[in-house]
Amino acid sequence: MKALQKCLLVGAVAVGLTAIDTHQLSAQSQTGFFEEFGTMWTFDAPPLDYWEQTYGFRPTQDWLDHVRLASVRLPGCSSSFVSKDGLVMTNHHCARGCITAVSPPDTDYHETGFVAQSMADEKPCPGVYVDQLQSIEDVTTRVRGAVTARGAEAQVEQRDSVIQAITSECRDETGLNCQVVTLYQGGMYSLYRFERFNDVRLVMAPEGQAAFFGGDPDNFTYPRYDLDLTLYRVYVDGKPRQTDHYLKWSEKGAAENELVFITGNPGSTGRLLTLAQMEYLRDVQYPAQLAGYQRNLAVLRQVAARSEEDRRRTQNQIFGVENSYKAVSGYLSGLLDEDRMARKKIFEDDFRSRIDSDPALKAQYGGAWDAIAEAQAGVANLAAKNRYYGFGGSQLLELAGTLVQYPGQMAMPDSMRLPAFRSNQLQRLRGQLTADRAFDLELDGLNLVAQLKAAQAELSEGDPFLTAVLNGRTPEETAHSLLSGTRLGKASVRQSLLDGGIEAIEASTDPMIVAARQIAPLSAEVAERMAPLNATISANAELVGQAIFAAYGHSLPPDATFTLRITDGLVKRYPYNGTYAPYKTTLFGLYARAAEFDNEAPWQLAPLWAERRDQLDLSTPINFVSTNDIIGGNSGSPVVNQDAEVVGLVFDGNIQFLPNRFIFNSLVARTVSVHSAGIIEALRKVYDAGWIADELQGG
Amino acid sequence: MKALQKCLLVGAVAVGLTAIDTHQLSAQSQTGFFEEFGTMWTFDAPPLDYWEQTYGFRPTQDWLDHVRLASVRLPGCSSSFVSKDGLVMTNHHCARGCITAVSPPDTDYHETGFVAQSMADEKPCPGVYVDQLQSIEDVTTRVRGAVTARGAEAQVEQRDSVIQAITSECRDETGLNCQVVTLYQGGMYSLYRFERFNDVRLVMAPEGQAAFFGGDPDNFTYPRYDLDLTLYRVYVDGKPRQTDHYLKWSEKGAAENELVFITGNPGSTGRLLTLAQMEYLRDVQYPAQLAGYQRNLAVLRQVAARSEEDRRRTQNQIFGVENSYKAVSGYLSGLLDEDRMARKKIFEDDFRSRIDSDPALKAQYGGAWDAIAEAQAGVANLAAKNRYYGFGGSQLLELAGTLVQYPGQMAMPDSMRLPAFRSNQLQRLRGQLTADRAFDLELDGLNLVAQLKAAQAELSEGDPFLTAVLNGRTPEETAHSLLSGTRLGKASVRQSLLDGGIEAIEASTDPMIVAARQIAPLSAEVAERMAPLNATISANAELVGQAIFAAYGHSLPPDATFTLRITDGLVKRYPYNGTYAPYKTTLFGLYARAAEFDNEAPWQLAPLWAERRDQLDLSTPINFVSTNDIIGGNSGSPVVNQDAEVVGLVFDGNIQFLPNRFIFNSLVARTVSVHSAGIIEALRKVYDAGWIADELQGG
Repeated sequence: MKALQKCLLVGAVAVGLTAIDTHQLSAQSQTGFFEEFGTMWTFDAPPLDYWEQTYGFRPTQDWLDHVRLASVRLPGCSSSFVSKDGLVMTNHHCARGCITAVSPPDTDYHETGFVAQSMADEKPCPGVYVDQLQSIEDVTTRVRGAVTARGAEAQVEQRDSVIQAITSECRDETGLNCQVVTLYQGGMYSLYRFERFNDVRLVMAPEGQAAFFGGDPDNFTYPRYDLDLTLYRVYVDGKPRQTDHYLKWSEKGAAENELVFITGNPGSTGRLLTLAQMEYLRDVQYPAQLAGYQRNLAVLRQVAARSEEDRRRTQNQIFGVENSYKAVSGYLSGLLDEDRMARKKIFEDDFRSRIDSDPALKAQYGGAWDAIAEAQAGVANLAAKNRYYGFGGSQLLELAGTLVQYPGQMAMPDSMRLPAFRSNQLQRLRGQLTADRAFDLELDGLNLVAQLKAAQAELSEGDPFLTAVLNGRTPEETAHSLLSGTRLGKASVRQSLLDGGIEAIEASTDPMIVAARQIAPLSAEVAERMAPLNATISANAELVGQAIFAAYGHSLPPDATFTLRITDGLVKRYPYNGTYAPYKTTLFGLYARAAEFDNEAPWQLAPLWAERRDQLDLSTPINFVSTNDIIGGNSGSPVVNQDAEVVGLVFDGNIQFLPNRFIFNSLVARTVSVHSAGIIEALRKVYDAGWIADELQGG
Repeated sequence: MKALQKCLLVGAVAVGLTAIDTHQLSAQSQTGFFEEFGTMWTFDAPPLDYWEQTYGFRPTQDWLDHVRLASVRLPGCSSSFVSKDGLVMTNHHCARGCITAVSPPDTDYHETGFVAQSMADEKPCPGVYVDQLQSIEDVTTRVRGAVTARGAEAQVEQRDSVIQAITSECRDETGLNCQVVTLYQGGMYSLYRFERFNDVRLVMAPEGQAAFFGGDPDNFTYPRYDLDLTLYRVYVDGKPRQTDHYLKWSEKGAAENELVFITGNPGSTGRLLTLAQMEYLRDVQYPAQLAGYQRNLAVLRQVAARSEEDRRRTQNQIFGVENSYKAVSGYLSGLLDEDRMARKKIFEDDFRSRIDSDPALKAQYGGAWDAIAEAQAGVANLAAKNRYYGFGGSQLLELAGTLVQYPGQMAMPDSMRLPAFRSNQLQRLRGQLTADRAFDLELDGLNLVAQLKAAQAELSEGDPFLTAVLNGRTPEETAHSLLSGTRLGKASVRQSLLDGGIEAIEASTDPMIVAARQIAPLSAEVAERMAPLNATISANAELVGQAIFAAYGHSLPPDATFTLRITDGLVKRYPYNGTYAPYKTTLFGLYARAAEFDNEAPWQLAPLWAERRDQLDLSTPINFVSTNDIIGGNSGSPVVNQDAEVVGLVFDGNIQFLPNRFIFNSLVARTVSVHSAGIIEALRKVYDAGWIADELQGG
């Protein structure tokens, strides 16, 4: 593969450059760096030459080891050690579970915030742990070597089993938490070894209103003014963990145009997807998803319009769905961007033609793109059925569907079940089925009508699903009949159907259960037709990943895998709204935005912030932006300067960052972070938490 | 025409509604109102029914007369009487000339601001006057009746002459300033009678930095924080003018979603243009204009990169060109908006088919649209030649061109000359030709090279202009030869060429003059070919205007004519940047934006504002937005509530308002105004101008 690698690298540079900003030309042409693949570098392959050429900064191995060890992973989030006594900094939105869990019965720390008065006052967080990455080992050869079978299923089994073996051996040998990470869609396998710390305690969390000021409307946007901060402390043997590998606090934070790094765990990107996969998302999946949100919004707004009380009751749900709509619209806008897609196509066309020009490579990889495209077309053909052949729209119908499927799923071996029915999910599922809840039957009915109407519009006439469920009735009549006749709203009814097994389900005349019984076989059939298509796509995606990694190696960072990455970027203003967004915001801006919406939710000030206003230096920065490459999972990541000092705390991206999920671009996309100076100002002057600020500042 | 009118109105409603927001449906369907034509109503045809149905507000004739008389026109701007003693409120950017003129030799009031300490201290503004609209009379019948000739030229002469007659008679009879206004491209002629007040004095102007905070980058945008205010006073016979027709000051300003009106003089819109005319702007004119700005910017940025001093020196010019680029991009974006253009097309197709279905109407108007389209295609064919056959790129070449054309132009009767050479422009032109100025020859050369390269790219090979000017040389060689050899940089050389007449020009061997002599006949020839095409377009545009006015009457407001209009709208937040822009901004926001750019120009605070910060109530509103329909010329217009009280002072639109020039839409387009409360807070606490605030508030 060496010859391919070299030849492609040289050629690839020329291709990559055609669409890249000329001001970055020299660094890129020397490093073979493609902007569209982003900058989520792994710690075992930092792009030292590229950094040196671009920024004149070449971190030492000590520097890299230090920030790696200071950066720790939380379930679903990122964080970092920020004091020698084990303080861990993350986002408020990463700590909601703990904040709820440690709130006393009469108090909600989400509303009031929480500040420990001393270490003795810190509250143990049930179930929270942090993982510290100790080492990375390339195990590609061993994994690949173990996969000798020809059939795809047997290959999967062999791979799972060798990965299992590597993981267990590692755990036995080191006592660490071990994970084999699949990079480049299978182009590389790396063994990541983590030390896990299980005693994590809550030290400080601001009010939810200060952490999430602006709520869902301001989410995914900048300028922002959020103190999205929580401080934990890690204890070992009942004592604060002592460490030298913590990030010191920067005195001033970052200046405009300063180089900063972010270390954290990006969850998932799709930058190695083929053009056909992106087109499927663009043309089929995302438009359908957005249409679903719109249906849901239309129903919610109809309910909201009934009365002022209904408006208040549905407000948060509406904001929530609008927020999902915003995120998916953002992803879609990147796929609809002709320049980005042209860049992707140029890369793929060029790469494929190079593969095809070598007979050996062509035999091994050449068919992968077309195989994916063909399977993806099959998925697109089934998409409407796959979307509607189920128990969607109504919460009660969904419960009915789960009840109807339950006995059959239980009869299968664990690995063959639908994910929700696997043993590790079973307790949660049974809890959901039998919980005593109130249902808004009108809302449920409206949602079901909307779902059925969409099914009518998108499925062909005479489609078996429509025949089975509507049975000649209108969506309204159907929903009325299902909802007025069902007794599934009662937890005891669901409990007895669950306990009664297949006989109880089959004997039931509850109209929801009857409908679910008719839907279930249709749903199973479409799932069966989808399975081989998806298997083809993943097998061939692996080939594509192998070919790309073989050709470009680490000069293209792998897609996000929720493991530790380091991304470089500049603190930088950007063109927005006909003018410029500043590189930072200040506390002036927080009070401005609250006043400009007449302190109306979600822009109201937390009471303490209103009270303490005159004691604050309002020119203190609160948030700032940089060009680093992040995505969900990076929440809580530290932003550090060249001295490995904390200048910020990642918590979001601007609206223009959303399209980066598939094709990266840093012209206007920005990572949004809490500013280090804003954290200190708030701790000292709003929260009377001088002792914590002192600890952060090493005082 | 009555039958046509009725039939079209009914049909038109259905058409207009297809693309209009459903929440406005009922008001529109009852009034036949088309959102895309905007809301710049004339005072002789206020849409009372539409207002009543939409807002539940039907102003009385007294109300309308009162706000009409309180609203006065300045040269190029709008303004209003805001005290019983003749205070007039307008924008700072409408008063620049006066502010310069009244600054003492050692002081620049643009930098320091100016506040009269008492009436005695007020400074007479040379050449500034205000026009107060006394009455409007429909003179269409008389104008139409006087046009009896068949040929277009003779018709123009007849029309000019009857308009001249009407104007003189009016002046003689009333002693007022009279103007016949052509509305609906000639669909209607109205006689506007104005009382003119010539003694206007400067009372108060803030520092330019407070008035234009954010400079060109923030221009045409919102959120904004500008005190774009100047106060004048009108004197009559040396005494402040006493009047009851002034606008009282609102105590609180407008609340969100409140109905407000704006009275002022919008300068120019193109909403009655045909689709072919809009397509020409979209496909030919604006792209070429933007390319020109980009060439200019590239040159300026090249110069700016030479040194820090060059950067500072070119900074304002760069911001200025970026601002023009922003404006034209905004206009273009509206024409590129498929929804807007579809709406325009639906209207035009429907209207034309209705005209065509009546033989009499078809004979009179049916051919107008195609005639315009055909002439516009001719203009498009000539566009590249028309763009480059001239003296563009270099300032020195432009001077050479003017010198070369001068003798020939002087030999013609005034009405036949190019506009710049007509007698009313001659003094200015001669001044420009002979002024002693410094030229940046490098910048001039770079601009000329850019212009010649663009000409090479856009004109066919062997084009006579390229042959004449380049004569086989590269653009760089040509520019070098022209600039190194010319002596036109010296004012005395230009003076003697001007004084020497045609003989001096013909004898000159200055390379700039030689080149200009070669270009001049080419330029004249293309102008001659353009003239009949433009004449065809304007004659047929008049037919289109007549047909539209005959059919829809005042239910479609006429295009802007820099005469008094009243536009309705709501004070209203809007979706922006992934979230919402608030309906108002506050002084908190002013201090925020300055701090967020580290007080760097153009976001630095005026010194007095920095000094007085702690004395201000920072939650005071400073700017706000509403959905009213404005455009250049409306600057300085008052915003009034239903009680005809001042709630604001128009000074700009947001970036989304720019596309409204051609097709109006109020979903996200907003007018930006200074808030009445911010004016009072600034007068009292920043400028120590309590006596003026007292006068405004009627104290």
